[in-house]
Amino acid sequence: MNNNDLNIVVLGASGDLARKKIFPSLFSLFCQGFLPKNSKFFGFSRSKYSHEEFREKITADLTCRYTPGESCAENMQNFLDCCFYQNGNYDSSDAFLNLYELMSEKSNVSKASRLFYYAIPPSLFGVVAKSIGDSGLVLCGSCGEQWSRTVIEKPFGRDRASSDRLTEELSAVFIEEQIYRIDHYLGKEMVQNIQVTRFANEIFKPLWRAQHIARVDIVWGEDIGVEGRGGYFDDYGIIRDVVQNHLLQILALVAMDEPASLAANHIRDQKVKLLRSIKVLTPEDVVIGQYSAGVLNGRKVEAYRDDPTVADDSLTPTFTKVQLTIDNDRWRGVPFTISAGKGVAEKLSEIRIKFHASDSNIFCSTGACPPPNELIIRIQPNEGIHLNIVNKKPGVKMDFHTEKLDLSYNKAYKENIIPDAYESLILDVIREEKALFIRKDELEAAWDIFTPVLHYLEENKVEPKMYPFGTNGMM
Amino acid sequence: MNNNDLNIVVLGASGDLARKKIFPSLFSLFCQGFLPKNSKFFGFSRSKYSHEEFREKITADLTCRYTPGESCAENMQNFLDCCFYQNGNYDSSDAFLNLYELMSEKSNVSKASRLFYYAIPPSLFGVVAKSIGDSGLVLCGSCGEQWSRTVIEKPFGRDRASSDRLTEELSAVFIEEQIYRIDHYLGKEMVQNIQVTRFANEIFKPLWRAQHIARVDIVWGEDIGVEGRGGYFDDYGIIRDVVQNHLLQILALVAMDEPASLAANHIRDQKVKLLRSIKVLTPEDVVIGQYSAGVLNGRKVEAYRDDPTVADDSLTPTFTKVQLTIDNDRWRGVPFTISAGKGVAEKLSEIRIKFHASDSNIFCSTGACPPPNELIIRIQPNEGIHLNIVNKKPGVKMDFHTEKLDLSYNKAYKENIIPDAYESLILDVIREEKALFIRKDELEAAWDIFTPVLHYLEENKVEPKMYPFGTNGMM
Repeated sequence: MNNNDLNIVVLGASGDLARKKIFPSLFSLFCQGFLPKNSKFFGFSRSKYSHEEFREKITADLTCRYTPGESCAENMQNFLDCCFYQNGNYDSSDAFLNLYELMSEKSNVSKASRLFYYAIPPSLFGVVAKSIGDSGLVLCGSCGEQWSRTVIEKPFGRDRASSDRLTEELSAVFIEEQIYRIDHYLGKEMVQNIQVTRFANEIFKPLWRAQHIARVDIVWGEDIGVEGRGGYFDDYGIIRDVVQNHLLQILALVAMDEPASLAANHIRDQKVKLLRSIKVLTPEDVVIGQYSAGVLNGRKVEAYRDDPTVADDSLTPTFTKVQLTIDNDRWRGVPFTISAGKGVAEKLSEIRIKFHASDSNIFCSTGACPPPNELIIRIQPNEGIHLNIVNKKPGVKMDFHTEKLDLSYNKAYKENIIPDAYESLILDVIREEKALFIRKDELEAAWDIFTPVLHYLEENKVEPKMYPFGTNGMM
Repeated sequence: MNNNDLNIVVLGASGDLARKKIFPSLFSLFCQGFLPKNSKFFGFSRSKYSHEEFREKITADLTCRYTPGESCAENMQNFLDCCFYQNGNYDSSDAFLNLYELMSEKSNVSKASRLFYYAIPPSLFGVVAKSIGDSGLVLCGSCGEQWSRTVIEKPFGRDRASSDRLTEELSAVFIEEQIYRIDHYLGKEMVQNIQVTRFANEIFKPLWRAQHIARVDIVWGEDIGVEGRGGYFDDYGIIRDVVQNHLLQILALVAMDEPASLAANHIRDQKVKLLRSIKVLTPEDVVIGQYSAGVLNGRKVEAYRDDPTVADDSLTPTFTKVQLTIDNDRWRGVPFTISAGKGVAEKLSEIRIKFHASDSNIFCSTGACPPPNELIIRIQPNEGIHLNIVNKKPGVKMDFHTEKLDLSYNKAYKENIIPDAYESLILDVIREEKALFIRKDELEAAWDIFTPVLHYLEENKVEPKMYPFGTNGMM
């Protein structure tokens, strides 16, 4: 296979995602030498820019964290020299023919593989796929020396039906093997570490089941609200924004059976199997909340409904706590919860695996039974693994108490830069490593769990419980 | 029971052990209010001192670590006011009658319990016991309001037969319940923590067996040699000095079955059971070494045999590595080793519990199987618990490597002073807590494991292998 020529097309190149995440990640990969030698980057969006104007626009967010110092400016110039821009309407195959022409001019287009990064709203996914198809930009999935792949990001619909429609629109142009559904949470260092923790450490394997684990809690919080950018969020709400995708994926990685190998499809097979073992949620399983006015770092924050970009009578949940039941031998009887909230006290994302305590422990005779062990995988901030164990407190008495066995990434891996999730994921697309992308059947299974309760909440106009901004009361 | 009056008699009061360990520990307990209100301390030895001279002699080693600042001088004065001295020969019942008289004069002798601390060589144990008996100082074990207890320290004989003789001499005066055989290692914070680690943490229980543990290594090292004080050591050697007692006790705590309760006899029952499951050692199980000349911190150190207090042709081992086999279901097939050496590279005492690695682990396909997990209990210095786990190394590649989950006592317990082992042990004697003392049948079982090989080494004049001082070559 020709690994030297690659054209990366970023659709929606003038948007936030492209500017803040995609181009900086491409630049980081470029600096580290992870991209094919002849990689070219093509921005496409409706706005009119010259190549130079576009380069200026994206430069502000490029950082040289892997190659600080003298070579930075040079690297940046070399990267920008490979960046080009084409404007046009997404539904215009002419515009995409112009893009094709630009690619022909600037790159070895007949030899180059093509990566289409959809940094655009999902309403445009189908339209763009059609334009790309009509303009003849798509190559087959992996034929001969070249490939073409398309990368899309959530939201993948609002429920099972709309998700299926999206899949259908894309599948008119791309086959499933060419579609990379990014869940950027899967690219996070500690999320990738879940399978290493579970399957590379023999000591955890026998413990990883209902016999030893009492409960699993996945917690996600943001100490900010929508802050004048409620448009997208108000339409989707917290469940669709982070629970049905990111946090459910984490749950699947924590709870799935060991895959036959590290092959992407073996891992995804186990995730799908696990998702299909989760009972479809009922209204009783879900609590929803919405933040009212509160205080953040001494600054007053207005209520979600008072945000100018949010409807005054919005019922959109900014908080949810979901109780999930996994109906298989490994997990029968173990409650799994996912809690997620905007405008809570703390920015935090972690997995808490609590082991059983025993009330017949010999230490119970000292007056109190030892507290249960707990394994905490902290995804952000301050990535790390912490195992709470019971200790004898130093002193002449037999007092026990819990201490953390600690592995903080920022202490342990001072020398290593933790890569941005998008870097890992883009590199995986190029390498055809699909383990961290969502397969069609996974997406379907995930929607099946949430679709009925989402419909119930909307059809019945269920009022979210109010919590003051900046509090963890509902967690 | 009268808990207010206690006379503590320290036999061998002018010796190193009494001055450096026993009186400082008594003072620490005194400062913390752990001793009965009317506690009096009586030193006895051959040397002639007035009470004042004796007080001066012991003052130098008292420290106010629990009560620094202003109250220190006052505490010390209060303590010293309760310290008295009597000289005399150990075989003279008259001398002990004088001691009795002193106790009558200075304390509420008819009500006071009596603790006899033998800080004397074992050759005197029987003699002193007889003198104490003849002078009528012994009360019954625990009758009515008072008790009398006797505390002895290793060496408890040189082999099973001499140990039995010692037991017999003592038993002429004290019943087994009155005898507290100190193994000061059992008083160490991390040794006491072994049972908490094992039995208060439910996650470790299912892992604690041959199915999951590949090997257990107990390592003890001192970076000093005999340094002109080889008299005692040359007669006993490293196996009798630390292996047959301290390190075998640690092994018993690591490997024993869970006791029915924390009751001292329940714990000791399990230790005895474990010791009896250890196969009697053969010469093939034991490697011995002796340090030759070497270097410590840039300073030249002479060979063991060149020490003026050691015979020129001494065969006494200063190093040993012992391979033990536990013949029960829990441990069948798991090698246990004890390594101990003087004059090695590092002062260190720790337990290393290595779990199985799997060569069918799914990560083996990445090129190397993940290294095994390991739990390390560091007894000294820098007390702590460390669990080696395999992690994904941060970065876009799936490289794993081992990191420590860390619990360092000096970080975790900054506020807590780790008590000296003797403090815990003396307090336990007063509280009649016998879990940390060696019962007669334990002592017998421990000797039974080592006696044949000790005799073999001596009878066959087995030459120890030489290792340069300051090296870990034989570990």
